[in-house]
Amino acid sequence: MAKFVDINCDMGESYGRWTLGHDEEVMPNITSANVACGFHAGDPHVMRRTVELAVRHGVAIGSHPGMPDLMGFGRRAIDVTPQEMKDYHRYQTGALWAFCKAAGVELQHVKPHGVHYSMFEQYPALVRATAENVMEMDKHLFLFTLSDTKYEAEAKKTGVRIVSEGFADRMYQADKQMVPRKAGPHAMITDPQQAADHAVMMAKEGKIRTIDGTLIDVDIQTICIHGDSPDAHKIVRAVREGLEKAGLIVRPLREWFGR
Amino acid sequence: MAKFVDINCDMGESYGRWTLGHDEEVMPNITSANVACGFHAGDPHVMRRTVELAVRHGVAIGSHPGMPDLMGFGRRAIDVTPQEMKDYHRYQTGALWAFCKAAGVELQHVKPHGVHYSMFEQYPALVRATAENVMEMDKHLFLFTLSDTKYEAEAKKTGVRIVSEGFADRMYQADKQMVPRKAGPHAMITDPQQAADHAVMMAKEGKIRTIDGTLIDVDIQTICIHGDSPDAHKIVRAVREGLEKAGLIVRPLREWFGR
Amino acid sequence: MAKFVDINCDMGESYGRWTLGHDEEVMPNITSANVACGFHAGDPHVMRRTVELAVRHGVAIGSHPGMPDLMGFGRRAIDVTPQEMKDYHRYQTGALWAFCKAAGVELQHVKPHGVHYSMFEQYPALVRATAENVMEMDKHLFLFTLSDTKYEAEAKKTGVRIVSEGFADRMYQADKQMVPRKAGPHAMITDPQQAADHAVMMAKEGKIRTIDGTLIDVDIQTICIHGDSPDAHKIVRAVREGLEKAGLIVRPLREWFGR
Amino acid sequence: MAKFVDINCDMGESYGRWTLGHDEEVMPNITSANVACGFHAGDPHVMRRTVELAVRHGVAIGSHPGMPDLMGFGRRAIDVTPQEMKDYHRYQTGALWAFCKAAGVELQHVKPHGVHYSMFEQYPALVRATAENVMEMDKHLFLFTLSDTKYEAEAKKTGVRIVSEGFADRMYQADKQMVPRKAGPHAMITDPQQAADHAVMMAKEGKIRTIDGTLIDVDIQTICIHGDSPDAHKIVRAVREGLEKAGLIVRPLREWFGR
Repeated sequence: MAKFVDINCDMGESYGRWTLGHDEEVMPNITSANVACGFHAGDPHVMRRTVELAVRHGVAIGSHPGMPDLMGFGRRAIDVTPQEMKDYHRYQTGALWAFCKAAGVELQHVKPHGVHYSMFEQYPALVRATAENVMEMDKHLFLFTLSDTKYEAEAKKTGVRIVSEGFADRMYQADKQMVPRKAGPHAMITDPQQAADHAVMMAKEGKIRTIDGTLIDVDIQTICIHGDSPDAHKIVRAVREGLEKAGLIVRPLREWFGR
Repeated sequence: MAKFVDINCDMGESYGRWTLGHDEEVMPNITSANVACGFHAGDPHVMRRTVELAVRHGVAIGSHPGMPDLMGFGRRAIDVTPQEMKDYHRYQTGALWAFCKAAGVELQHVKPHGVHYSMFEQYPALVRATAENVMEMDKHLFLFTLSDTKYEAEAKKTGVRIVSEGFADRMYQADKQMVPRKAGPHAMITDPQQAADHAVMMAKEGKIRTIDGTLIDVDIQTICIHGDSPDAHKIVRAVREGLEKAGLIVRPLREWFGR
Repeated sequence: MAKFVDINCDMGESYGRWTLGHDEEVMPNITSANVACGFHAGDPHVMRRTVELAVRHGVAIGSHPGMPDLMGFGRRAIDVTPQEMKDYHRYQTGALWAFCKAAGVELQHVKPHGVHYSMFEQYPALVRATAENVMEMDKHLFLFTLSDTKYEAEAKKTGVRIVSEGFADRMYQADKQMVPRKAGPHAMITDPQQAADHAVMMAKEGKIRTIDGTLIDVDIQTICIHGDSPDAHKIVRAVREGLEKAGLIVRPLREWFGR
Repeated sequence: MAKFVDINCDMGESYGRWTLGHDEEVMPNITSANVACGFHAGDPHVMRRTVELAVRHGVAIGSHPGMPDLMGFGRRAIDVTPQEMKDYHRYQTGALWAFCKAAGVELQHVKPHGVHYSMFEQYPALVRATAENVMEMDKHLFLFTLSDTKYEAEAKKTGVRIVSEGFADRMYQADKQMVPRKAGPHAMITDPQQAADHAVMMAKEGKIRTIDGTLIDVDIQTICIHGDSPDAHKIVRAVREGLEKAGLIVRPLREWFGR
């Protein structure tokens, strides 16, 4: 039986005069783009151009809402209330939605940016606020979560449509968590071929070879690759080719998950 | 034959810890709210609460996009390109749209904020950019314009749905332009009864008594009252009562203009 | 022997079109103004006018640096590093310094805004960063601290010049901490006379009558009153008069503390 | 007789996660750095690091105040009043001043960013506001101006200390104005050797070969090179070497201009 998989990457993280990432090179090889919405990166012009680039390559679009912290690139926890987070997500997702609508495409998903993930592990109420926003805006939207986290468990309870991610460029621990970046350079996978093999194993066999050599089970539907590393576009291309060579059908979630 | 008229007012111009306007008192007496979208005023929480307040009172909602200039309250011209203006309007209108969608209502109109009006008189390309955004987002949206301006003339050429405003609290000149604020206090009408009479004359008879006493013709569908004057709520109430006493049916545009 | 005391209040918390506080009424009765510096409130125009107002009334000026969070009025903890906090304080204090220099006065003190106090209790490194900034900018500057807190204890170790505050409009617990605002309305003292009595007891006798009736010792040099309550100016006037009637000499710190 | 010249370049135009320019490579070959102050580019961390880098290389520091327009990189005219401009310059220059003070160096100059130059040609009151800020902050500060402009003429009347710039990487017209960028690629000089020759001619002989081949007189004390072109560091090095080979002494203005 044919098996589908999606590849997602953060896109549109430039701002004004500042360029970040390799969107032109990366976009042709991914199937879902997480588009920054102006709070941590991405201004309205960048958003429009990113949506247009995605549409040109048949890439599905999701919002990538961030904390209101341009100076910190949305990487710092801010002590917001669940209602505040919900309002920020709604605002940003709505802004992106308008660019999608004008481009004739629908929004596919929401993927919270950066520091949300650690905030979610601490405060389940923030997960509920996030999921509620998604469902109230459009019950067909997917919310990206991390496999085997409190975040995912809490999100599941809300009834929101969940899609689990695996990271092609990150090593995992035996407890299914990613090796923290600050643990050292071995936390990251920078060799394109190694990232591709890692992705194939996750997507095709549902397995991850952890940093201590053991095999763990995962159930993921989308492979994430970080877009802001210098060689991101090489990793993305290798992962795409690897997945296709392994017989997987690489398509945007909306095309095989149903609406 | 019954004649309809709409009353609009700028709403949701608070921001964070700062409160501006008398939204609670004003909302019950207007029929269309121009809601600030975060660039010149209005944060995501204020936007949500303003939308909820409008929905509670059956008031139709429009976006009130501003220049990206919180410090200047969107009152200073910025030398933006037409594409930049279009992107800013799209972003802000989309953000507000999301709050409307979650509240179960549709966006009715777009009314550009403050300094847009003088920018429009100088640069017709900015009018076209504004109108294009409105039409590309939703061809049913109304764009608010000022009667007998270059802005209105240029907007008409684009095919966007236009609604003409008259100001209940501003004096007019014989050339159909408003007396500039800087001309002195007589530019403003601060007496509620006088504002009401002014509004009735515009809405019912299509006439304005100008500052030099002559009568001029106007064709307006909505009466605007500024929401940030200290007595705005009194003026709004007087105008509403005046219009109704004069036999006009005060309803949101969408209810009598068709969709 | 004559005893001196200072009265401080947060000033200059307006921003652009938005007005907050009663600076004109409050300024004549205080001796030290904590001036917002643009990150949580206060734009460059507000800063200039606030400095001019303070100079007119012989009020000494201190910077009131905040988190970079205009939307949250600097009241939300942000997970910044000590270096980031130091850089933010430096930037903001320098900006205010320029307005003081142009007005011909020197900066007297630094008082971190709002949420800093709870961040300081958790992270001593943030206290050190704060104190280092103050000393590196000018070793004569005072840093305002709260009596009997970890913040004060840590700041003392750095060698920075410390001034301890007592709050005239807040009730205290037997453990010398303020009753949290969220505990209810009894956390605040809103009666001007009661606030004045509270201040006199702290400043003259070094005692506080706590919420459960016990007497505790304090050693404070400046009395703080919140400037953004509706009746702030009445409380400030009552406190000033109360302190003077009690025989205290109400003067800016710099005038009696030496430089 | 030995002749001195200064080389200046815009530095510190990164922001948060975004890097712009080649400060590490450029700094060793310039003598004056124009440091962005947070309004159009440059956050407090970038400012601190830029000041430290300049100090390490013996480079003098000036503020490079911009319009409050991060999204537009300070390149768009905003319709500010003279008082607003003055307050913005004061705020930004003060912020930078603090980093200089903590690093043990004095501020040398002020060079307004980007769009100021065209605003200055239109509105002399903005020039006066700019010059007043400089003089009120420190009468020893230099203000950078453009040779033979209305800006320079107006600034001279105020009594501020003026330093005239010539651009090593820009072609000039016979009327002493630079060929506008939008005129095409020939407006820019991208060949390092050609830029060096251009600079030597300006600094040593007081002459410019214009785009139509004529020779015009100039009187400049500092050579400016744009820091954000891809080969900026190569041009800067070539200009520095060219000036020194031609027998000029390349030193910060403060070292030969007196204080």
